[in-house]
Amino acid sequence: MSVLDDEIAEQPEALARFLDEQAGGVAALGRALRRQRITSVVVAARGSSDNAARYAQYLLGLHHGLPVALAAPSLGTVYGRHPRFEGALVVGVSQSGASPDVVGVVAAAAAQGRPTVAVTNDPRSALAAAAEVVVLLHAGVERSVAATKTYTCSLAALALLSAALEDGEGACSARVDGLRALPAVVAAVLDGAAQPVRHAATAVEWGERCVVLGRGLNFATACETALKVRELTGVAAEAFSPPDLLHGPVAALAPGTPVVVVAPTEPSAAHVASLLPRLTERGAVTLVISRQQDLLARATVALPLAAEPQPWLSPVAAVLPGQLLAACLAEARGTDPDRPAGLQKVTRTL
Amino acid sequence: MSVLDDEIAEQPEALARFLDEQAGGVAALGRALRRQRITSVVVAARGSSDNAARYAQYLLGLHHGLPVALAAPSLGTVYGRHPRFEGALVVGVSQSGASPDVVGVVAAAAAQGRPTVAVTNDPRSALAAAAEVVVLLHAGVERSVAATKTYTCSLAALALLSAALEDGEGACSARVDGLRALPAVVAAVLDGAAQPVRHAATAVEWGERCVVLGRGLNFATACETALKVRELTGVAAEAFSPPDLLHGPVAALAPGTPVVVVAPTEPSAAHVASLLPRLTERGAVTLVISRQQDLLARATVALPLAAEPQPWLSPVAAVLPGQLLAACLAEARGTDPDRPAGLQKVTRTL
Repeated sequence: MSVLDDEIAEQPEALARFLDEQAGGVAALGRALRRQRITSVVVAARGSSDNAARYAQYLLGLHHGLPVALAAPSLGTVYGRHPRFEGALVVGVSQSGASPDVVGVVAAAAAQGRPTVAVTNDPRSALAAAAEVVVLLHAGVERSVAATKTYTCSLAALALLSAALEDGEGACSARVDGLRALPAVVAAVLDGAAQPVRHAATAVEWGERCVVLGRGLNFATACETALKVRELTGVAAEAFSPPDLLHGPVAALAPGTPVVVVAPTEPSAAHVASLLPRLTERGAVTLVISRQQDLLARATVALPLAAEPQPWLSPVAAVLPGQLLAACLAEARGTDPDRPAGLQKVTRTL
Repeated sequence: MSVLDDEIAEQPEALARFLDEQAGGVAALGRALRRQRITSVVVAARGSSDNAARYAQYLLGLHHGLPVALAAPSLGTVYGRHPRFEGALVVGVSQSGASPDVVGVVAAAAAQGRPTVAVTNDPRSALAAAAEVVVLLHAGVERSVAATKTYTCSLAALALLSAALEDGEGACSARVDGLRALPAVVAAVLDGAAQPVRHAATAVEWGERCVVLGRGLNFATACETALKVRELTGVAAEAFSPPDLLHGPVAALAPGTPVVVVAPTEPSAAHVASLLPRLTERGAVTLVISRQQDLLARATVALPLAAEPQPWLSPVAAVLPGQLLAACLAEARGTDPDRPAGLQKVTRTL
């Protein structure tokens, strides 16, 4: 067992710890976020955390009508400028809390008197020091350089922000109930996916590239799955939303290319699934992550989700088969998942 | 000569036409944009236009302190929801003006009474009909499915928006002067790049993948260069900002991988260039797009820019070698640049 395998397996426990520590404070968090009127959200993040930010973009748009901008972090580090964050809640997401770009955006927003939140695993980090409110991940030390448990805990932390922004105690506590169900769901999904993923890693001919498709809330899942495969195996994995794939990059789909299709029950699934005939027609090898039997039956390789959380939390479960797949593929291809070539734990800025 | 080659060569003329038609109206455009107070900008776009939107993200942040969100267009098409665009100027960019996602975002913003702008090549498009202000590209019909002249004209249109947002006539007209210099600069760059690019397409061993690096204003250029190579050649080209490459994907850089480094004089160049030793150390074949002799001298293949516009307009010139490279590579690899497999002109939404 690699450290990576351990940390993937540890996720139910890490999420339970996060919820034990943080869910009780949701009302206080809501009051802090509402001390100023918020008309938009800016999220600063890099790497896996940037994928967590994409989840926040859809979640906060969908549930709170808030436009979410992913910060252009180089504005600060390259040009020494930051926008005026008028009307914005500014959130920095970084497990280490040490990425200078991300800290810079949050510090600039705090200096402008805007409400700021740090989502980080390190209470003593520069990011935690810069932000007004800190949502700690309590994921435990992540020793593998590839983020897994800090990714799912970051998703849960952003989901908790969404719960905290709900109007009315009833709505908020229904959301917290959804969050509290996560550890059991995640345990079931990990357990159910182990065998099919091992099959997918060995039975499929993995060449030099693959594609991962997802949409809406699960566009984040597609991006994170592609990033994990790229980091851990060196396979050139690319994530696309179906319209963007159809517009151009479908041209690059050679017959036999593995295409991972992220299609849980969540409404975006139908949109992604409608692409299956086009993929099959082009000779793609489809790997479908879903809970719907009809979709799984049409896949070259089915990666069934043994359980699903409330739909708004779908990405927390849907990413797990991808994490397992990246780890299995690394093993099958003889690369060391705990020391992927060139990978650095903290995103430092040049 | 392919249609694509013609359209690449036509860019000085297309930009001149755009400026003749639109630059005179910059003051009126400014008044229209300012009829409501704007505290942020939302840009809706897909494909190449989404890369133009990335340019707007840096440009409007840098020059006007405005946070820019790239819209999550699936919110409308998948979930039937749109955010409240309070305080926002909402811009849709689509050469065809027919992408339903993009039209949906602009129509929703208009229904909310927000100021809206359509950047499009078709005055009779749904996008033009939905927006309050239309900035027409005047690029002429683009027959090649790969966007080239509509991309550079879209950059110029977004740059014109930035000029229109300037406070004071002097600042605005200095910007318009910069814009008016573009046709001559673009002609010189195209002319100067033809020979080095032909060399790069044939002398470098192009395998199945390559990487394109850019940062700040020219992150857009890296994304668009990678998209053109992917669309036209089937090579898996990936764009990265240096911190994101260093964090993880550098792991996937096999020796001999071509890495296109977009490093014009603009301040972000130094940040991108500082990565050169790391790339060389990993055995990458570096192709450097720059005007700086010291950088060009350190490249495996130099792709010199024969001229440069004002720094804020840098992406209009810096993308040209990449367009030429994609076209040459397509020819060298025997694919038809005018009929890339699977490519569709209009991004329709599933």
